[in-house]
Amino acid sequence: MPERIGRYTLRLPSRPLISGYAAVVGKKEGEGPLSEEFDYIYSDTTMGEQSWEKAESAMLRDVATRAINKAGKSPSDLDFILGGDLLNQCIGTTYGIRSLEIPYFGLFGACSTMAESLALGGILTDSGASGVCLAITSSHFCSAERQFRFPLEYGGQRPPSSQWTVSGSGGAIITNYGSGPRIDMVTIGKIMDYGIKDANNMGAAMAPAAADTIQTFLRDTNSQPSDYEMILTGDLGAIGSELLLELLSKNNVDIEGQHNDCGLMIYDLNKQDVNSGGSGCGCSATIICSYILKRLKNKELKNVLFVGTGALMSPTSIQQGESVPGIAHAVLLSAE
Amino acid sequence: MPERIGRYTLRLPSRPLISGYAAVVGKKEGEGPLSEEFDYIYSDTTMGEQSWEKAESAMLRDVATRAINKAGKSPSDLDFILGGDLLNQCIGTTYGIRSLEIPYFGLFGACSTMAESLALGGILTDSGASGVCLAITSSHFCSAERQFRFPLEYGGQRPPSSQWTVSGSGGAIITNYGSGPRIDMVTIGKIMDYGIKDANNMGAAMAPAAADTIQTFLRDTNSQPSDYEMILTGDLGAIGSELLLELLSKNNVDIEGQHNDCGLMIYDLNKQDVNSGGSGCGCSATIICSYILKRLKNKELKNVLFVGTGALMSPTSIQQGESVPGIAHAVLLSAE
Repeated sequence: MPERIGRYTLRLPSRPLISGYAAVVGKKEGEGPLSEEFDYIYSDTTMGEQSWEKAESAMLRDVATRAINKAGKSPSDLDFILGGDLLNQCIGTTYGIRSLEIPYFGLFGACSTMAESLALGGILTDSGASGVCLAITSSHFCSAERQFRFPLEYGGQRPPSSQWTVSGSGGAIITNYGSGPRIDMVTIGKIMDYGIKDANNMGAAMAPAAADTIQTFLRDTNSQPSDYEMILTGDLGAIGSELLLELLSKNNVDIEGQHNDCGLMIYDLNKQDVNSGGSGCGCSATIICSYILKRLKNKELKNVLFVGTGALMSPTSIQQGESVPGIAHAVLLSAE
Repeated sequence: MPERIGRYTLRLPSRPLISGYAAVVGKKEGEGPLSEEFDYIYSDTTMGEQSWEKAESAMLRDVATRAINKAGKSPSDLDFILGGDLLNQCIGTTYGIRSLEIPYFGLFGACSTMAESLALGGILTDSGASGVCLAITSSHFCSAERQFRFPLEYGGQRPPSSQWTVSGSGGAIITNYGSGPRIDMVTIGKIMDYGIKDANNMGAAMAPAAADTIQTFLRDTNSQPSDYEMILTGDLGAIGSELLLELLSKNNVDIEGQHNDCGLMIYDLNKQDVNSGGSGCGCSATIICSYILKRLKNKELKNVLFVGTGALMSPTSIQQGESVPGIAHAVLLSAE
């Protein structure tokens, strides 16, 4: 049963494990520094579908199938799917998993969805409510651009602070038996809003939430940044990451030696024309469900504090002059 | 700790209770048959705000405050908020709860959100992960119309099968100590898609999911419809309710004596020009968090099987020729 540590953190004494995981990406992500890590790289952005939204669902369906297979399970073995995505009404996930006939908790955490679904999956597993569940999410550059910004055909300029939505999907099977990386602790974040109104500067909008959740986690667990091999935010990008370190250092918390960001890992920022880095639910999902879990599984990494960040705005709220509320959830992943 | 009954149902042995609840509605809902039940009836659709989206957030914020107060708590006592709504990226909830500084699980279940949040809140409470949490959702006729259908100014005709999105918000505080109605069991639903492509006939699209979840619950618990005083779907409306009874009777399940639907309860269908009835996250939320919980609390009702239904489509998926996937979650609420 989950056990409260400090005010906001839950320790999961049964140490739920990830018995299977998969990540697929689009062409651009497949040309980045992590190209060797993914299960599959699609050669174009349509994934053989008639629309970008259907392409996103196709990626997510592909990942669900791969993760379930890699865990040695079939869909009927699963108790729950925990998932969601950036598309209006989370249709990437709905249509992606529609045919699987698995009880579904729909989540909305914007780019923090992978952390939210892993955290919830860990809690449900630790409490015995779930035997086997799938945490999953996706994003697609083209479906996100036309929904959140401009039609691609318009060829809008992207400011230096903007981030590039990852085309990709990642999913992980969480269970209590077998072997695999563990989910040891989770901290669910509070909404933080520092008044950033520029929807092209999501990193800045999300950095305060990441800072708050990291400090909460360290305080609750009475631990130091150096207790973790990696503190991995997803996805603050270049500008947000710099702000995060600055916000933390004002409170005498120094994570510079441990910090990395999924938005900085997935692309080569010098060569791939992605401005401030990657973003989108698929960004941290594809990195966690490939590079990170692989290295935790083979014990190259001992533990990773994954801090998934999300910007909970919509084009409508921005048009109405609202600022961008951020959220960040922390999940402590450990080698077995 | 939650205990699995049959394949898909969880029994919550600690019987989490609802220690406070609140519901506020707009003018039209306040003119309906349940007008005496609500905590507050707004006299116009703007709720004093500059936009309908901000009005929806204002209602939700109002309900959060009322529910927390009625439970004798303050925001800092809460471990989690579990919520979401129909607006793109769930901004009704995000901006509504932004100032409360409570850890937030964002959910997306369309009109099933109240059932999803009560179910999850019950599980988290039963497992000890949560001490006090708030399950909450909202919808607003005007923000939903312009997002899902037409600008109101256009004056589009509404087909007889269409439902009227409720302007309202409902919220419930779930905890393990004190007194109040209980959450005894939950069944999380699977996505069901019978190929309905008419976004103006949501009741028909959701009826198969409601039928599936009700049958699953009865099978898992080895119980009969007559074991429940009320089987309350939300929100199938007139057409969906008829289809539900038909689908169930084909499998020799007769719930006619117990069945009611939130979409039929909230308006006077003969007088209020709402065609097939009410819908929207706020429909079942305001009825559960007023009429139903009040009667469970004073023991006028013994138990209610609440089956929240949602249509997981978006305007984009419909424009792309997709059918409407439905989902339904069951929550067994009992008098103390």
